Amino acid sequence: MSIAESILAGDTRSLARLLTQVENGLPEGRRSLDELFPHTGRAHLIGVTGGTGTGKSSLVDRLALHYRRPPSGEPRRVAVVAVDPSSPFTGGAVLGDRVRMGDLAGDPGVFIRSMASRGSLGGLAQATAAVVQVFDAAGFDPILIETVGAGQAEVEIARLAHTTLVVEAPGLGDEVQAIKAGILEIADLLVVNKADLPGADKTTRALKGMLGLAHPAGRKASPAWIPPVLRTVALDGTGVDELAESIDRHAAHLRASGEWERRERLRLEAELETRLTAALSERLRARVGEGHYREALERMARREVSPAEAVESLLEREDAASI
Amino acid sequence: MSIAESILAGDTRSLARLLTQVENGLPEGRRSLDELFPHTGRAHLIGVTGGTGTGKSSLVDRLALHYRRPPSGEPRRVAVVAVDPSSPFTGGAVLGDRVRMGDLAGDPGVFIRSMASRGSLGGLAQATAAVVQVFDAAGFDPILIETVGAGQAEVEIARLAHTTLVVEAPGLGDEVQAIKAGILEIADLLVVNKADLPGADKTTRALKGMLGLAHPAGRKASPAWIPPVLRTVALDGTGVDELAESIDRHAAHLRASGEWERRERLRLEAELETRLTAALSERLRARVGEGHYREALERMARREVSPAEAVESLLEREDAASI
Repeated sequence: MSIAESILAGDTRSLARLLTQVENGLPEGRRSLDELFPHTGRAHLIGVTGGTGTGKSSLVDRLALHYRRPPSGEPRRVAVVAVDPSSPFTGGAVLGDRVRMGDLAGDPGVFIRSMASRGSLGGLAQATAAVVQVFDAAGFDPILIETVGAGQAEVEIARLAHTTLVVEAPGLGDEVQAIKAGILEIADLLVVNKADLPGADKTTRALKGMLGLAHPAGRKASPAWIPPVLRTVALDGTGVDELAESIDRHAAHLRASGEWERRERLRLEAELETRLTAALSERLRARVGEGHYREALERMARREVSPAEAVESLLEREDAASI
Repeated sequence: MSIAESILAGDTRSLARLLTQVENGLPEGRRSLDELFPHTGRAHLIGVTGGTGTGKSSLVDRLALHYRRPPSGEPRRVAVVAVDPSSPFTGGAVLGDRVRMGDLAGDPGVFIRSMASRGSLGGLAQATAAVVQVFDAAGFDPILIETVGAGQAEVEIARLAHTTLVVEAPGLGDEVQAIKAGILEIADLLVVNKADLPGADKTTRALKGMLGLAHPAGRKASPAWIPPVLRTVALDGTGVDELAESIDRHAAHLRASGEWERRERLRLEAELETRLTAALSERLRARVGEGHYREALERMARREVSPAEAVESLLEREDAASI
């Protein structure tokens, strides 16, 4: 039985082994990914983004607990992929504090994976996409993709998701400054966590005000969906059932409006582009040879050729080498 | 006289025109950039990064004022490139509030340019590098590159600089959480701005403590340079002369240790890679044809081929097309 077949049969150890291969970009993972890919495209991918101090991770844990022990209906197998792109120089996952899942310890229906950057943003986005595919094929649904912060990196990773939650909390400074236009535009749901703290009303009002401004020109949201502003207290679970309901409503809206398929397409296109770019760069260096690549760089450093001229000469050399 | 020659002769209108061409990625700019490139590599590139609310922009303005009216020595021509990668969906520059330079209004020795993202992080990094080269060739020195936030995007842009300042301020929440390991590792100087506020001592101590932890394993800083923690009040200029001195000391250290050249090389290598990647992707799409590109994507969407297989087929098709 191949590792992919074991995963499709529900073997958790094979799953963990493949995730490690995929995270580390090992070539062994490639064949398994190809084998699993036809089984992907079923899970609801939920992005959760927000700054430090918003309690975003606790909220993700609460959502996972909700899906495992729903007030009604069947429990769902849930995966959490926690990504920290702001720590580019560490090799391992920095989210070592992910030991808050006491209530779910030992539950094989929950799988958590932390990922730190591996040098480049493109590399991280690619590895995250692959990890999500593995969970998807393995039958986890939903898959929660948690990102720290609110920069371009998070926006790139949020592109993976069908539904994007942006989490805020009261008292993190000037809300109007803290919430960037770009982040608001990717939000399908806004969550004011720590809603029991003073200032929660103010934060909620500020968010609703900004939504009013942002949504005439909304980009990702289709006109029929106005992002709701929800209030939660992750610490005791207040509002989490309502949040999960709202997430389900969003999924239903996406499917009914054709938006689900459109986002799926955008997602796949972004993945194709990322992988293509990496493969092209690798092929050029192999064909041109490290010596000529270095020489182009040296000539740039001596200011004999401009960057654009260096690129041209490398492209020409690759063409000559490929004939 | 070409536009590049006019710029080298000090013509400000030609400079502004080329900057606009370069920012918008217009092909007209390409020839001028090639012509100017041999004149680059002289300016001290200073990156300034930090979260919202740290007063980073005011500090940059103060530094610019310092270079124009130094307590001793000759005034220097200074350029400011203000980059906001967290606003990916707006086309124009979002830093419209950059009208705080009252003291320097009309001074041709200061040039400020705001840049917002143009869709992709790679695109922004490339455009920023080009704008910096134009200023460098035009004789501006130093060039201050200001970035908002502290994510991977900022780290990428900080790679452009010889010297990187990381700005913090008291009372922005839990310092230990707010300052990411990745950001600390790129810092050559740490600045506690708003040092007149309560909590400045605590922030300074926290930064010194984290430096102690981070620097045994420091990456960018050579062992002989221990990043100092400086205190400023941008509002009234307190500490700015000392900060500028410290920046000069860092430049001297870089030159003496050979680190200046090493960073220059890394910078050029990153630029070559970014440009090469963009050019390769463009060439592939032209050779393969939009129809076949779309078809590969459709087959991925139908789960007939995996992303890796789609990439392989496109690479093979490009090879066939190029013969």
